[in-house]
Amino acid sequence: MKKITVLGVTGSIGMQTVDVVKNHPDKFKIVAMSAGYNIEKVEEILKIIDVKYICVVNEEDADYLQAKYPNKYIYHGTDGLVKIAVLNEVDIVLNAIVGFAGLVPTIEAIKAKKDIALANKETLVVAGHIITKLVKEYDVALLPVDSEHSAIFQSLNGENKKQIKKIILTASGGSFRNKTREELIGVSVEEALNHPNWSMGAKITIDSATLFNKGLEVIEAKWLFDVSYDQIEVLIHPESIIHSMVEFVDTSIIGQLGNPDMRLPIQYALTYPQRDILFGGESLDLAKVATLTFKKPDFKRFKALALAYQAGRDGGSKPCVLNGANEQANELFRRGKIEFLQIEELVEKALNSHRFIKDPTLQQLIEIDAWARNFVLKEIGEN
Amino acid sequence: MKKITVLGVTGSIGMQTVDVVKNHPDKFKIVAMSAGYNIEKVEEILKIIDVKYICVVNEEDADYLQAKYPNKYIYHGTDGLVKIAVLNEVDIVLNAIVGFAGLVPTIEAIKAKKDIALANKETLVVAGHIITKLVKEYDVALLPVDSEHSAIFQSLNGENKKQIKKIILTASGGSFRNKTREELIGVSVEEALNHPNWSMGAKITIDSATLFNKGLEVIEAKWLFDVSYDQIEVLIHPESIIHSMVEFVDTSIIGQLGNPDMRLPIQYALTYPQRDILFGGESLDLAKVATLTFKKPDFKRFKALALAYQAGRDGGSKPCVLNGANEQANELFRRGKIEFLQIEELVEKALNSHRFIKDPTLQQLIEIDAWARNFVLKEIGEN
Repeated sequence: MKKITVLGVTGSIGMQTVDVVKNHPDKFKIVAMSAGYNIEKVEEILKIIDVKYICVVNEEDADYLQAKYPNKYIYHGTDGLVKIAVLNEVDIVLNAIVGFAGLVPTIEAIKAKKDIALANKETLVVAGHIITKLVKEYDVALLPVDSEHSAIFQSLNGENKKQIKKIILTASGGSFRNKTREELIGVSVEEALNHPNWSMGAKITIDSATLFNKGLEVIEAKWLFDVSYDQIEVLIHPESIIHSMVEFVDTSIIGQLGNPDMRLPIQYALTYPQRDILFGGESLDLAKVATLTFKKPDFKRFKALALAYQAGRDGGSKPCVLNGANEQANELFRRGKIEFLQIEELVEKALNSHRFIKDPTLQQLIEIDAWARNFVLKEIGEN
Repeated sequence: MKKITVLGVTGSIGMQTVDVVKNHPDKFKIVAMSAGYNIEKVEEILKIIDVKYICVVNEEDADYLQAKYPNKYIYHGTDGLVKIAVLNEVDIVLNAIVGFAGLVPTIEAIKAKKDIALANKETLVVAGHIITKLVKEYDVALLPVDSEHSAIFQSLNGENKKQIKKIILTASGGSFRNKTREELIGVSVEEALNHPNWSMGAKITIDSATLFNKGLEVIEAKWLFDVSYDQIEVLIHPESIIHSMVEFVDTSIIGQLGNPDMRLPIQYALTYPQRDILFGGESLDLAKVATLTFKKPDFKRFKALALAYQAGRDGGSKPCVLNGANEQANELFRRGKIEFLQIEELVEKALNSHRFIKDPTLQQLIEIDAWARNFVLKEIGEN
């Protein structure tokens, strides 16, 4: 029985994790979970599975839950988050928190020798240099939950990582993949949220449309698979059937395919190195799909991708600025405060205005993240 | 240094093996090789690499070579073939003999505890039940050299074979993939030999056009990967870029991709479980390929495939009849003695006229093979 803490349980990944776990009651148990403000959903989950430890953001919500569920352990705030990430009885922490907020609990979980199933890519984007060292030091497994990184991870099964020639990260191209740069002017939030293939949360769906999501994934891949940026290629593949590939030194390419279903990478991170039946999972019928297409990304059309590669190559504090500025700009766009194309503009400005730090500590990263967000807010006169 | 015997060195696979070996003089050495009647090509190879033991078919050719190369060991006939397959100093026998003739040397090599790199699929098609037992008994590796089976083998790297859901064997569809059944009437040998993607020998190119090749591969896959026929699916994929795939119980599909280049599976069988640079190998550029297509095979249009599945499912002596009759009919078509569509007709007749043996011995297989060839010859009044 694998005992799990799920951080960010009420989000898209969190809810799909609940689905996977409830279908394998003999193999997995969610011991602890964290949520934000959606207490209704927390209670919904409690009707499906029994969870002993719960952490929410607000003290009032915690008090409400404690009164209603006197036999459970209810925590709140960042301290609570860390508490449920380091519980003695837990084997693996699935981190599905969105954004920079996922970093500290990941670090604490590693230090408590928990394996990490990582859906929170920001952890690696901003602090890959810290996380990879800790993972080695505490000898824990770091298992990707992103569909692309899970595909690469699966493709590397049984292979010698020193024989990787390059990683081919596929990208659907997002909601606006058929629009020219000119046509992106004035697109609405609603249009951006209408992702053609994947059912995901709002933040990541916008990141898909800007291609910042793919940019963050490039940086994530660099740290997860210990390759150089020259070894990471992004390939536009609108059908999202080949989830990513690895080319080896002998020109052989191994790739992972399937219908777009996030439950697969979630479950794989939990069953690895074995596999298990995916309840409700549908076999890919390639004859029915009939056609798969591929093209090179246009780095002028998708400026976010160029910015991410550059930030990754510069390294140090740059990816943290990229991520923080993007999180803030993404949110402002969703709130209707800025235009779609302003997201990348604001991120670029933040990168250009930032004072570079080569090997930032956790404390410095927290400050840089706050600086980047604040910079974006100031730029549009919100702060 | 891996020391190799290459059986069938003057054929397409044999010559590409020479190419791979000469590019890795520090890792591989061809110690022994066999050829048929093409002595000129044998001498060409000797200009490229130094080979100590040589076997040819005829005594006169052997005498000629012995006189010219007094320091080499020259053998001839089936006895000679077995001699170079069991040499003490050899680690692995790459069997690239075409057809049933490859069976006996494979068996003898296994008994001499040599690893086998198998391009001769007929060995497994007719005698899978014998070979798989021997491989276990003598604890040798059986490494596929067919591009499809190498793709499956690579996709299974690090995986638990009990978690295979199905094997998806891709097929280009051969030279006549765009023709209706009616349009196949009267096609010429020349047209049939014009394979769209792969550069292969004449026999296998015709087998590609009839789809008997894919049928034989289905039976080969059954034995190599220990799955049932219900778990093997053929998928028409005209571009020959995804060389085959494996679906696992969790619906995840792992596949191997690359430009069509037989040197890759040849080299992989020699470097496994590692990889090495493929000299002259070209990286696949999916953005350049742009489109991959897939469709279900039409079992009425491709009757050979239906015949092979049925022979495989019936088991026993049936695959041996299928193979022997097809080898003979394939040759008759190449010699202009029969029409293209007669190949499958003759094979079907042989299967229907055959007296079934459930668990044939090697001696019985040799007799059944001779019977099937003879049956085909008689049918067209050639014997």
